[in-house]
Amino acid sequence: MYVDIGAALASVADPGVEESRLDDLDDRVRDAHERIAAGRADDEFGYASLNLPERTDPGAIRDAVEPVADAEYVITVGIGGSALGARTITSALAEAPERHVVLDNVDPEHVERTLSELPLSETAINVVSRSGTTAETLANFLVVRAAYEEAGVDWTELTVVTTGEAGPLRELADAEGLPTLPVPEGVPGRFSALSAVGLVPPAILGVDVEGVVAGAAAVADDLGPSLQDTPAYAYGAVAHQLEREGAAVNAVMPYAERLESFAEWVAQLFAESLGKDGHGQTPVRALGATDQHSQLQLYRAGPADKVVTFVRPGERPDLPIPSASHEALSYLDGVDLGELIDAEYEATVASLPAADRPAIELEIDRLDPQGVGELLYAMEAACVLMGELAGVETFTQPAVEWGKRATRALVQGETTEETRVVDERPSHVVD
Amino acid sequence: MYVDIGAALASVADPGVEESRLDDLDDRVRDAHERIAAGRADDEFGYASLNLPERTDPGAIRDAVEPVADAEYVITVGIGGSALGARTITSALAEAPERHVVLDNVDPEHVERTLSELPLSETAINVVSRSGTTAETLANFLVVRAAYEEAGVDWTELTVVTTGEAGPLRELADAEGLPTLPVPEGVPGRFSALSAVGLVPPAILGVDVEGVVAGAAAVADDLGPSLQDTPAYAYGAVAHQLEREGAAVNAVMPYAERLESFAEWVAQLFAESLGKDGHGQTPVRALGATDQHSQLQLYRAGPADKVVTFVRPGERPDLPIPSASHEALSYLDGVDLGELIDAEYEATVASLPAADRPAIELEIDRLDPQGVGELLYAMEAACVLMGELAGVETFTQPAVEWGKRATRALVQGETTEETRVVDERPSHVVD
Repeated sequence: MYVDIGAALASVADPGVEESRLDDLDDRVRDAHERIAAGRADDEFGYASLNLPERTDPGAIRDAVEPVADAEYVITVGIGGSALGARTITSALAEAPERHVVLDNVDPEHVERTLSELPLSETAINVVSRSGTTAETLANFLVVRAAYEEAGVDWTELTVVTTGEAGPLRELADAEGLPTLPVPEGVPGRFSALSAVGLVPPAILGVDVEGVVAGAAAVADDLGPSLQDTPAYAYGAVAHQLEREGAAVNAVMPYAERLESFAEWVAQLFAESLGKDGHGQTPVRALGATDQHSQLQLYRAGPADKVVTFVRPGERPDLPIPSASHEALSYLDGVDLGELIDAEYEATVASLPAADRPAIELEIDRLDPQGVGELLYAMEAACVLMGELAGVETFTQPAVEWGKRATRALVQGETTEETRVVDERPSHVVD
Repeated sequence: MYVDIGAALASVADPGVEESRLDDLDDRVRDAHERIAAGRADDEFGYASLNLPERTDPGAIRDAVEPVADAEYVITVGIGGSALGARTITSALAEAPERHVVLDNVDPEHVERTLSELPLSETAINVVSRSGTTAETLANFLVVRAAYEEAGVDWTELTVVTTGEAGPLRELADAEGLPTLPVPEGVPGRFSALSAVGLVPPAILGVDVEGVVAGAAAVADDLGPSLQDTPAYAYGAVAHQLEREGAAVNAVMPYAERLESFAEWVAQLFAESLGKDGHGQTPVRALGATDQHSQLQLYRAGPADKVVTFVRPGERPDLPIPSASHEALSYLDGVDLGELIDAEYEATVASLPAADRPAIELEIDRLDPQGVGELLYAMEAACVLMGELAGVETFTQPAVEWGKRATRALVQGETTEETRVVDERPSHVVD
């Protein structure tokens, strides 16, 4: 994996990082790295996330999923960090990503339709909730169980549970004798992709989860004190500095369909970790080449408040474009589809500094378990670094708690401080 | 459909719109509406988009798709506005949205896998390109044709073409005797969802396209000179004013899985239309309730530079949550899944002004053809209004052309002004 920060320098882009500032920035990276290394050494809350590659035991995951290894489909019942990491890995690596179905929303129409379309007797259930009380997850799990029972399918034979040491989900799993896996201690949900939380569905679908963990471990082993030697830190430090220079938005734009979920995963990781104290870039998920035809207009000609993060694999399968035998299309004769998307990539990356806008590139060798493990770990390390540089509490999410309390009180019909705010919400309707 | 701008007023949110400014804003809306009405009356380029509900002939679309009406799947081969409108409508309304497969990228791995998984003899092909020369679309169409030929399937029996009056795609369609539909004159791709460009796949999949057009027509007929009577203008005017007050980001967050593509469609519509001359809000696509667990942290506690646009249907199907018979989960007993997502919606909307951040709500009666037609048209009208208020050229996209020229020269191996920029792109690699 490498990172190219050339198109983010102030010599070609505004906002941009002055080349003369890189040394200062590197001093700050060194200090942050010391803090991160100390946190990892002590397995401190949050920092422990960066130890997952050595703590995760793929063998235990394989054992737990062995009873459902023949399943044709797997439904993940979880939300946020309990679902998106697994979705990201299966999207990137499963031979048939559509065999992983995610119920990470409580939309009745969607839940009902999803369950009615799946062959339940061949569908494993992967339930994930650290606390074992997450409203959306537990509600969906209750609905899923009932659907299996109604179809005469024994869901207890098909379910794997990943949860904390205590809580209703743990009790239920114990009572039914379900295979369980622990959520790792000290790791917030959004940093748990490289644990059982993210690896159960890929393991069921035959992904080389050992390779994913090995790719992550390789990046973990290489984290050094300088951004000049550590791609993850180069990325994080430059993205951070660009934010300070005015890049309020970070558009993450992979050039590979299989990495569309990865862009979404980065967005939630960065938003929830860094959106604090009035700071935090707004991550925007995009997809190349598709979004070139729309978002790029804004990125090049809109406000100078963005950096675009490009991601691509260095290799692609061959797929020659057949000749159209038409003069107007002759420029495509003999071209491979991969050459076309790579030409679009090159053109789009260059089009940003050509419009005085910054870009950063991340490239993995290929879209394989090693490469995906590298990418996930690198973005987590970059995120932790960015949190250190910004001085925020990377591993908490206080602003999402208000809504959880309000939701709970609303469904219970209770009156609380929060429900009063909801009831008194200002309204000015136009219809 | 209604719009609620209450939570976007300065009395509860910063950035916010002063209630005393609404009259001034309404004067500007009146002027803009006059310009829009004049453009519509003359069928001027771009403004003609807002006449589609009366120009589109669903009967002609039904006739053109009649030969493929029995297809099990439909592949759309198109990119940008030629694909996303159709995707949005089938996602929202088709009984089985997965029967619509979109090839809107030139990723060889994805194209090859998609074609290998589909039963080609039962898969209709919907090719869309106004110019008939779009590189991605034509390349993919050539690959698709070759795959059908290799599988011994006569693609000419399964293909419907939507294109302009001239160009290679038109010539090819005529030579093969394929059913064709015109792209509407004067309508940029991103505004063409309510024409054949967006309605062929839904028509093949049995969606009531007449209902979609009727919903749009109802909003078109009701466009009046005041934001106080016109929900689409209320939305556009307030979003515009919020941008001026500092809301550089507009997060579009529907609370319905079926509207996830709608958020993406809005994002491309706004980005490409309004991202000009250093202006333009950055649209961010989100999904409720899923993204509450991550993005919301940033929206509430990050920089005060955002407005969140909430969208929901007023009705949902019933799906009771079965009892867990567990005290910790008893608060879910007797609750419906739809009540839960609506409680989350109410809580999240209210949580923004509770943190001094603005929100706007859009609600349709239900997720049906009428409601979806209303929503699409309303956002197009809002976008045109926002362009008028910002004084930009809403209907052009000059900044995406550079990359197209560069791509073409790169695959041809030519040296041009653009390829020189690509070759000389600054590089600073960390690996």
